[in-house]
Amino acid sequence: MGTVAGGAFRRFFRFLPRPAVTNTLYLPELREMLAESNAAELQEFCTALHPARTAEFMEGLTAQEAWEVLRHADPATRAEVFSYFDPHKQVELIETIDRNEIGHLITDLAPDERVDILHRVDSQIRDQILTLLHADERRDILRLSTYPASTAGAVMTTQFARISATMTVAEALADLRRQNEQREMVYYLYVVDQGDHLRGLVSLRQLVLAEPDARILDIMQTKIVSVEVEVDQEEAARTLAQYDLLALPVVDHERHLVGIITADDVIDVVVEEATEDAQRSAAVQPLTLGYLQTRLLTLTWKRGLWLTILFYFSLGTAFTLGRYEQIVASVPWLVFFLPLVISCGGNSGNQSATLVITALSTGDIRLRDWLRVAIRELLMGLLLGGILGAIGFFAALFVAPTAAAACILPATVLLVVICGTMTGSLLPLLFSRLGLDPSLMSNPMVACIMDLLGVLIYMSLALALLSPA
Amino acid sequence: MGTVAGGAFRRFFRFLPRPAVTNTLYLPELREMLAESNAAELQEFCTALHPARTAEFMEGLTAQEAWEVLRHADPATRAEVFSYFDPHKQVELIETIDRNEIGHLITDLAPDERVDILHRVDSQIRDQILTLLHADERRDILRLSTYPASTAGAVMTTQFARISATMTVAEALADLRRQNEQREMVYYLYVVDQGDHLRGLVSLRQLVLAEPDARILDIMQTKIVSVEVEVDQEEAARTLAQYDLLALPVVDHERHLVGIITADDVIDVVVEEATEDAQRSAAVQPLTLGYLQTRLLTLTWKRGLWLTILFYFSLGTAFTLGRYEQIVASVPWLVFFLPLVISCGGNSGNQSATLVITALSTGDIRLRDWLRVAIRELLMGLLLGGILGAIGFFAALFVAPTAAAACILPATVLLVVICGTMTGSLLPLLFSRLGLDPSLMSNPMVACIMDLLGVLIYMSLALALLSPA
Repeated sequence: MGTVAGGAFRRFFRFLPRPAVTNTLYLPELREMLAESNAAELQEFCTALHPARTAEFMEGLTAQEAWEVLRHADPATRAEVFSYFDPHKQVELIETIDRNEIGHLITDLAPDERVDILHRVDSQIRDQILTLLHADERRDILRLSTYPASTAGAVMTTQFARISATMTVAEALADLRRQNEQREMVYYLYVVDQGDHLRGLVSLRQLVLAEPDARILDIMQTKIVSVEVEVDQEEAARTLAQYDLLALPVVDHERHLVGIITADDVIDVVVEEATEDAQRSAAVQPLTLGYLQTRLLTLTWKRGLWLTILFYFSLGTAFTLGRYEQIVASVPWLVFFLPLVISCGGNSGNQSATLVITALSTGDIRLRDWLRVAIRELLMGLLLGGILGAIGFFAALFVAPTAAAACILPATVLLVVICGTMTGSLLPLLFSRLGLDPSLMSNPMVACIMDLLGVLIYMSLALALLSPA
Repeated sequence: MGTVAGGAFRRFFRFLPRPAVTNTLYLPELREMLAESNAAELQEFCTALHPARTAEFMEGLTAQEAWEVLRHADPATRAEVFSYFDPHKQVELIETIDRNEIGHLITDLAPDERVDILHRVDSQIRDQILTLLHADERRDILRLSTYPASTAGAVMTTQFARISATMTVAEALADLRRQNEQREMVYYLYVVDQGDHLRGLVSLRQLVLAEPDARILDIMQTKIVSVEVEVDQEEAARTLAQYDLLALPVVDHERHLVGIITADDVIDVVVEEATEDAQRSAAVQPLTLGYLQTRLLTLTWKRGLWLTILFYFSLGTAFTLGRYEQIVASVPWLVFFLPLVISCGGNSGNQSATLVITALSTGDIRLRDWLRVAIRELLMGLLLGGILGAIGFFAALFVAPTAAAACILPATVLLVVICGTMTGSLLPLLFSRLGLDPSLMSNPMVACIMDLLGVLIYMSLALALLSPA
């Protein structure tokens, strides 16, 4: 997967199956190098590979060991490798290694990244580190950290190339050469006026293709897509994706250019949002750290909160069922199918809810499509309920005294599945209409509602169909 | 959200709240322009906005009308706007508009895009269009369409800049200026040898910063991350994201460079995979088209298949419950809590399954962490089951004859929640270990297993605790 320059490593990489499996293979050799203080080999290790790969191979090391290894890299490579470590390892390193050395490391990180990491560090240690930084950098960090989490401001970087419309192409290129070291994304150059307002954009490709004495003003693109600093990161991600951009400028209320969001940050946002949606739809409050990094009590709270709410709903179902004690006691075979009936409702409801929630989030359906959705789901409910009901009828014949009594089951299944598809599809749309997150209408929540509806439909039908018998 | 050049449009865009709401606002004006054949205004409409925005505003038009509008754009803009239409609108256009005109349009599309679109078109029409294209392009399309869906080959584009290591920087820049029109991603230039093997990479940024007479061989990066053409698109996406790349080269078995995957395509892949995972975990076979575009019978099949399987499982639960007829008939209050008991198991199981599946897909946990996961989930089960059990105990006191009998409920809830967390967490890990997709261990599947386990635990405990009474 990688062509490697260094010598000693080549034999390793030829046989690499997948990163996840192999990243502890090299640990003993690495520890040996450390024990021997073998500077030459450690230096080779730090530079021979892509920094992401180097970070992977160091995964099993302690914070102290990892830092010993990184000492042998030049500062830029050190910062790059560090940026690929797991967040909790980054925090551990920052909290345990000498403050001065960490100060230098922080300076070399990308602005959006260092704010992210410092945010996780113990606040006392963070303050100590901040005092060690240049005033400029400290101010930049403090400003970036004022943007609320999950907004465009929180994911943007402040490293971008800024040019003036009055420059010529040659001047802009010369300027770029000067600025280059510091800039993350030099493929788009943003044109700002003296008040730092965003006026246009020139791609590096345009610069290279243009005549050296052409004016930026004449070649710049002015149809620029940008987002405001407070918009949700999800909207910023959607905008970048929709317009197929490499980077998206972020502006404040007065259209001052304050940062850019790059495509690789958007990929992270998309993954993060998908994970949160999945967790929310399983009735878990989204985790801020990884599963193994989240403390047990935090996890208990994030899960227990919803479980308890759902439990109280279920108690309601239990007491509803209690009102039908007579029929439960006198027709026990009805009870056998109770779990089946309510799971039919839950499963079909889950399917509809998930289809509608994913279609809403990909923009595949809009709120105004609600009637089309409702009609589709009604038809789906009829078809699916019909099929399952037919199977259920033959199963009920085994235990029901008469064929007429056995009809209770298919009739219930049909009605419950229709209720499931309607509830599952329309509740997320309703939530979305009310400005709430449709994925709050989570699968367990739909299942819970269907438990109650299932019991009511089943018992009412049983009463109606069995009483004349 | 966009700075607009044209005059008439400016007043519209100042008040744009969100795209989704406003894209039908402009339809009447657009239809009026068409009725009047107002070439000047239609031309302005086609060029004044970002192509993605133009496409949005045309959403309500019929295929015929949309084509009438696009006739007023130059071919490049026409192709760009077209590429932002919904897939089903693209297909409709291709199938209804004059073949010759479509042939030109197809030529102007990006290679990966046109293969994608032609794939969806009626095969007869596709063949007609193919015969109208240049032999080169036809070959390119046929070659790209041989790669199976969801592989790197199917998402890559064949438009990229290719240079030779023997060139100087000045020669490479001159070459780039010549090739530029055709290339999608010119920010990375790939260095190939005479046999077309991938040897290195030079970024446009490097080219701009290097001395004009430097040799490519001396400045190119050789630590290149690439993927093979058959790997899953998800793996390609993960690789690009992990290494923070703008584009990822795709090679065949002999390391011939055959295409590149760009970051914006990866964003699409990530969204697509997240949607598929969500659907799979709600027991829906992933849809290939949008929700509203999928035919009702297809949807019935994709949902009905799983619902039927789950239904048969539930029949098993019903017959298991049937074996406890005696106790069901004699202690009806136990039945009241049956839905509650099984939903406790399902909900806690869902939570664990979703946490483990998302953590696996973000690389947050690995298979070898299974023991840590199991211990965490056991503790979670104890805590959550304890809390819910305590609430359940007080509820059961209302209906149970004795406090001892009421204990059946909390004991069951505790055990069922523990079973739920263990089943929900370990089954996805087991599936992953067996090389199966862990999201197949979908939420309804876990809930279904918990139905059966819940019934068994509840009834066994009831038998054990009630028989001496």
